Amino acid sequence: MLGLEDHQLLSENNKIVPVRVSEKLQVVSMAFLLPHRNSPVIWRGPMKSNAIRQFLVDTAWEPLDYLIVDLPPGTGDEALTIAQIAPNITGTIIVTSPQAVSTLDSSKAITFSRDLGMEVLGVIENMSGYICPSCGEAVDIFGKGGGEDIAREMGVPYLGAIPLDIDIRRSGDEGWAFVGKVKESPAWRSIDIIIDSLLARIEST
Amino acid sequence: MLGLEDHQLLSENNKIVPVRVSEKLQVVSMAFLLPHRNSPVIWRGPMKSNAIRQFLVDTAWEPLDYLIVDLPPGTGDEALTIAQIAPNITGTIIVTSPQAVSTLDSSKAITFSRDLGMEVLGVIENMSGYICPSCGEAVDIFGKGGGEDIAREMGVPYLGAIPLDIDIRRSGDEGWAFVGKVKESPAWRSIDIIIDSLLARIEST
Repeated sequence: MLGLEDHQLLSENNKIVPVRVSEKLQVVSMAFLLPHRNSPVIWRGPMKSNAIRQFLVDTAWEPLDYLIVDLPPGTGDEALTIAQIAPNITGTIIVTSPQAVSTLDSSKAITFSRDLGMEVLGVIENMSGYICPSCGEAVDIFGKGGGEDIAREMGVPYLGAIPLDIDIRRSGDEGWAFVGKVKESPAWRSIDIIIDSLLARIEST
Repeated sequence: MLGLEDHQLLSENNKIVPVRVSEKLQVVSMAFLLPHRNSPVIWRGPMKSNAIRQFLVDTAWEPLDYLIVDLPPGTGDEALTIAQIAPNITGTIIVTSPQAVSTLDSSKAITFSRDLGMEVLGVIENMSGYICPSCGEAVDIFGKGGGEDIAREMGVPYLGAIPLDIDIRRSGDEGWAFVGKVKESPAWRSIDIIIDSLLARIEST
């Protein structure tokens, strides 16, 4: 999604050097450790936990405002490792699509955060409704409102909804940043509002 | 998706008794081991591997035509455990959405199958194109053709594509079977064709 598939990690003075995507963004990824873009990470949990530890501890991060860890769905080794080794986690952000099969998983992630003493900063509903670019009719392909429902049910903040937008999918596939390039679309405005709510939540913690 | 969220597993003579969904379908799930539908599986890999082992070995399955293991995305502990402990796996089925960020993961799963000596029975493209129910305009929300491309690129069979259909999402959320209830839709016909190709592939292995 950042257009970095073929990057490899370099090290300097025994530290991993993060890849600098832009002036404001540095990134490390397990994908950078693999020999080829089609190579799978055939690792059991403990090896993944070691990699995560290295990314947190043995990486020469430039001074950071925020460190964001984008985890796979679920409550397995990756999430457990972060929760146990990272000090002072500000909180977790739960991203769900609106349908019941996703919000059920989100409720598990919320319980997981609480059980491990991490604050849930809020729930974001992604793929929330779809407006046909041809006729303007709104269709809730994946449903709508499930993210807000689960936030209320579980007693955590709701941060907002991002509608399905073909440009978001394209930007990920093509490796450019949706925010900043595609302006003044409903999806762009939603993301802007969500970021503001999120920053307000973080400052109040 | 089967409407079984609140089931608990029973045991009989030291064996797990699978839940019988219909005359033709028995199922076990990690979800049945949890105290509440919102409870997460806060397990590291070795515990997950033990559960999978029990589902395969210590379950009183009635005679089966097919045992289908529906795994989370990725090539972690769950997939590794199955590959290592299950004898004579017929093969793997790779389900992908059309967009590049998904087909890249699928190519990793194909490499994983090969590295572990499992035949790839084929690739299915899910969420392939969308026809607006209001104006009939086709929009490729998640792209189209990525599944076929990756199958060709990796030299494995392509089994077919299932279009985005709101009734498939509804059936999963509401716990009823899409196939059998909603007939003669494009998605239903696609699934029918894919099942036929898959059975032909299995019989030829």
